[in-house]
Amino acid sequence: MTAVIGVFDSGFGGLTVLRELRRALPGANYHYFGDTAHLPYGAKSVRTVAKYAISAAHFLEQQGIEMLVVACNTATALAFDDIRAAVKVPVVGVVEPGAQRAAAISRTKKAVVAATEATVASHAYQRALERLGVEATEKACPLFVPLVEEGWVEHRVTEEVAHIYMDEVFQDGARDADVLVLGCTHYPLLRPLLRKVVPPRVEIVDSAESTAARVVELLGKDRGLGQPGDLRCYATDSVEKFRRLGGKFLGCPIENIELVDIEK
Amino acid sequence: MTAVIGVFDSGFGGLTVLRELRRALPGANYHYFGDTAHLPYGAKSVRTVAKYAISAAHFLEQQGIEMLVVACNTATALAFDDIRAAVKVPVVGVVEPGAQRAAAISRTKKAVVAATEATVASHAYQRALERLGVEATEKACPLFVPLVEEGWVEHRVTEEVAHIYMDEVFQDGARDADVLVLGCTHYPLLRPLLRKVVPPRVEIVDSAESTAARVVELLGKDRGLGQPGDLRCYATDSVEKFRRLGGKFLGCPIENIELVDIEK
Repeated sequence: MTAVIGVFDSGFGGLTVLRELRRALPGANYHYFGDTAHLPYGAKSVRTVAKYAISAAHFLEQQGIEMLVVACNTATALAFDDIRAAVKVPVVGVVEPGAQRAAAISRTKKAVVAATEATVASHAYQRALERLGVEATEKACPLFVPLVEEGWVEHRVTEEVAHIYMDEVFQDGARDADVLVLGCTHYPLLRPLLRKVVPPRVEIVDSAESTAARVVELLGKDRGLGQPGDLRCYATDSVEKFRRLGGKFLGCPIENIELVDIEK
Repeated sequence: MTAVIGVFDSGFGGLTVLRELRRALPGANYHYFGDTAHLPYGAKSVRTVAKYAISAAHFLEQQGIEMLVVACNTATALAFDDIRAAVKVPVVGVVEPGAQRAAAISRTKKAVVAATEATVASHAYQRALERLGVEATEKACPLFVPLVEEGWVEHRVTEEVAHIYMDEVFQDGARDADVLVLGCTHYPLLRPLLRKVVPPRVEIVDSAESTAARVVELLGKDRGLGQPGDLRCYATDSVEKFRRLGGKFLGCPIENIELVDIEK
């Protein structure tokens, strides 16, 4: 039987995870929830993020999903256990799969994690990587999300900002690191630019890809074969903006978008 | 009798307005509400911004204020009439005072307004300036807020971004403009840098200053004389972050901060 998968993010970034999921399991049906009225989560507290994330998870459960993907690094980092405790279906976050992929490919057992302020402050990646024997240096890159949303993914300003952030971390604490984990779902759009900026020895791990691979592992490839399945999107703020920006992240136009209110 | 003034913003930016108010009426008592759980408003819809702003206005009314200053350009631009209809006390926004100041000093009767995406999309400044006989060119500068919050107020990256935004607007549609209105409460922190970037003939109007002047006009200078009055701050998210970032905007440390929840 075709899988029904719920994907949740604070906004559009999680659509990079959905894109990888649809590449891996094209025939599955997807419900994507973007909590755009409350974005960005990256600068909010644990308490606030957990409250919003649980409301969204309940909404998706009501749509009949059988697995929930928390396609938001901040929500995974700050509230994964709270979300898992609040729903009945299995929950997959983005932190653990990214950390596992990094541990598998690192030879020096040293990694750099680029993420939002809130994800870095939670040290969720550091803990996940340490459990796998990898030493992590976390780097907050608060300008990357607004630069991506400005559409400046190949812009010289973005390259300069990336140089500042990456030089700071690779020249200081993390000289031997050979992996860079993209710990924010907006960052895959900066991957070509980051490839030019980080040292050649460094491999880039995109947690969107690793997360999709983990979902396939759990559900089995045969649950999403065949013709493209349904995609329904829900946003808590402007549907028009979701349509306009979302397409960039998903890599194709988005049709079914519904405005929902979870603050009841 | 000493005035009691409520000041409202989505976050910390409105503290630049509070700073000017305290300079003008030091003896008044202030209640400052920063809706940090929902920031930024700059990319949200009218409906969402109005809902949050009205909740905040009601909360401040319950603190016994006699005047409400909406120290947030987006909330003023999108929801000023809704806010005014929802409370009993007089309400002052930031758009009208900034527009009036610009109209008073412009000789060419052409102005540029730099603001967030949502403020620009609302055309609130354009309408206010047109009523005063001034032709306005509005320019969305979505990277300015994150750059200020990164603390890069004098940084070469910020200067380059400012050059891109300002050159686009002053070299294209607004060659004769002789006023730049800072239509976002974060932007006063970029004033020294913008001074270097915009043509020398252009005067910079800071709506924080104009708004404070309007409040003095309405209440009278004698309502805020003497020793510094009380300041109480309320935030809907992390008090710690409010303390840390808020001080930069207010220009001095902040002591009384209370966490409040308005989503009930």
